[in-house]
Amino acid sequence: MNIAVVGTGLIGGSVGLAARHRLGARVRGVGPEAERAVARGAADEAAALPDALRDADAVFVAVPVGDLAETVAAVLATAPAGCVVTDVGSTKRAVVAGCDDQRFVGGHPLAGGEAAGVDHAREDLFDGQTWYLTPTAATSGVLLERLHRTITGLGARPAVIDAETHDDLMAAVSHLPHVLANLLVSQAARALGDESGLPQTGPSFRDATRVAGAHPALWEGIYLANRDALRAAIDQTVAALGEVRAALERGDGAWLSDWQRAAAADRRALMEAGLAGGPTRELRAAVPNRPGVIADLALTLGRAGINISDMALSPSPDNTTGEVALWVPAPAADRAAGLLAGLGFDVREGEGE
Amino acid sequence: MNIAVVGTGLIGGSVGLAARHRLGARVRGVGPEAERAVARGAADEAAALPDALRDADAVFVAVPVGDLAETVAAVLATAPAGCVVTDVGSTKRAVVAGCDDQRFVGGHPLAGGEAAGVDHAREDLFDGQTWYLTPTAATSGVLLERLHRTITGLGARPAVIDAETHDDLMAAVSHLPHVLANLLVSQAARALGDESGLPQTGPSFRDATRVAGAHPALWEGIYLANRDALRAAIDQTVAALGEVRAALERGDGAWLSDWQRAAAADRRALMEAGLAGGPTRELRAAVPNRPGVIADLALTLGRAGINISDMALSPSPDNTTGEVALWVPAPAADRAAGLLAGLGFDVREGEGE
Repeated sequence: MNIAVVGTGLIGGSVGLAARHRLGARVRGVGPEAERAVARGAADEAAALPDALRDADAVFVAVPVGDLAETVAAVLATAPAGCVVTDVGSTKRAVVAGCDDQRFVGGHPLAGGEAAGVDHAREDLFDGQTWYLTPTAATSGVLLERLHRTITGLGARPAVIDAETHDDLMAAVSHLPHVLANLLVSQAARALGDESGLPQTGPSFRDATRVAGAHPALWEGIYLANRDALRAAIDQTVAALGEVRAALERGDGAWLSDWQRAAAADRRALMEAGLAGGPTRELRAAVPNRPGVIADLALTLGRAGINISDMALSPSPDNTTGEVALWVPAPAADRAAGLLAGLGFDVREGEGE
Repeated sequence: MNIAVVGTGLIGGSVGLAARHRLGARVRGVGPEAERAVARGAADEAAALPDALRDADAVFVAVPVGDLAETVAAVLATAPAGCVVTDVGSTKRAVVAGCDDQRFVGGHPLAGGEAAGVDHAREDLFDGQTWYLTPTAATSGVLLERLHRTITGLGARPAVIDAETHDDLMAAVSHLPHVLANLLVSQAARALGDESGLPQTGPSFRDATRVAGAHPALWEGIYLANRDALRAAIDQTVAALGEVRAALERGDGAWLSDWQRAAAADRRALMEAGLAGGPTRELRAAVPNRPGVIADLALTLGRAGINISDMALSPSPDNTTGEVALWVPAPAADRAAGLLAGLGFDVREGEGE
């Protein structure tokens, strides 16, 4: 397998290390750190575009977010027909909306956030981490499947989700928490006055505000990249704060304790449900071999909260139809089969070949 | 020293243990768990009101928040003239506003939150923890000083603050963080859909929402007890969210990075400044022996963020005037002296006797 990594920093370098050591892939590195990546064992050779893409089976675009759209376009302009191209940007709506090439699948590994640069790259950076994939109706099923398996091989847990939901989710689990942490420290600083330190309240305030003020230069870009979803999340927060405020105004203890209980249930559900783990079952279905079919199927399951832990496509000899095998969590398998049947697929239980 | 503890649960029992072992006090326990407190070594004897208050030097009222005002009133009705009475409720405005007895000082130890009941009481529960004291203009200086020293003897760090500021502060560092944690888990649960677990985002979301849904029955009461300050804190949050939203709408990266940097500075200030620790200096001043003087002085320093790590009052032989010695952090000592001079006191540096 030939892999090109465009941008060999922390993420790109870690892709290179894992791809070489775990998948036996031949990796070409592109960009200012490419020679350093070779020295670190994260690439077999340094190359430039478009040469780096010759015979490539997969390209990972891992450049800074500001250069992403342009670099993806440049890669797609010269990548081979059967090559899957993905990026690792932390928001997906814009890059996916700007690209209807069947070879492109938006991606976002939930890893990094540590020191940048290829010197910090690690083969195990993605182990057990969620790696979102955001295919569209244009995406080739064969290439989506290849990328899904490649990412599993890197150690991550791929999760297929549409770009819109991805950005809303990131707003909810990452960007809004950063915003609120900032507000909490500012309000506490004001309440405490200029000179006082935080009282010894135990770890809860510290925990709640651990990310306040993180990397200003980086976070300016992250907030702006996801500004639409983040504004919507802020609006939801303001609306919810209004409800809490009204309950306080009414002195409505019953509402407050119900609300507290609902939050406890939400937290439990979030923490207990896992994206992976536990027994899986295999479902098989015949699928027409045209772009968007596999993406639609994966997105339908993703929207229902059913994660595909593995995926295999077997094309028919004439390449017009094929069979997809999906491994899904056993408790969700019947529901998944029903959803796929609803899409018009003839689903059967896999034989575990 | 005779101490009565009314309500010998986790907090009251721990007061009893520390008072007996560290101050050599004789402790009477009052309430349904009093016999159990004696068995656990947290009281010398179980007694009932008003007998328990005979010859008492200090009374700690540590009953559940709903019974607080009534119990404080009952204690003050029968406690000796020279006895200081305090409570341990987590909000202070209401209980302090309802009481202008010179023997009463509102209190709030920042400890507990663990399993309730005298069986979990520990002599070291308060070690190094902030214990707020909220005297008023009615409070006796002699009794405030006694309580301050007693609480230091229990292992805590007393911090004098007015009741209003205390409640605003608790809203900012505790109650609002709980509200926001609840909102975060609810929004994330909605964004993720019914079936999905939290992606492997690392510990930041978990940390930020650790307190979501904590003890519904308890927190209903805490929110309501501090509803005025919490509503004000919510209003500040909504206003601040509006500013962030507007910056996102404008695409104003400069504003966002300035804001992120300000949050980083606020967080650093909160975490680095401590309420105690480091060298102290002693300031002395002659004070008239009437209620409110010492409280005023302590509150003035508290408002300026200057913590009094120790306090000693030496009454004159005729008991009409006295001298107060205050130990304050050395870097703040000149500022403290200036503030006290501003109140009309003749301040001099202590001789470290």
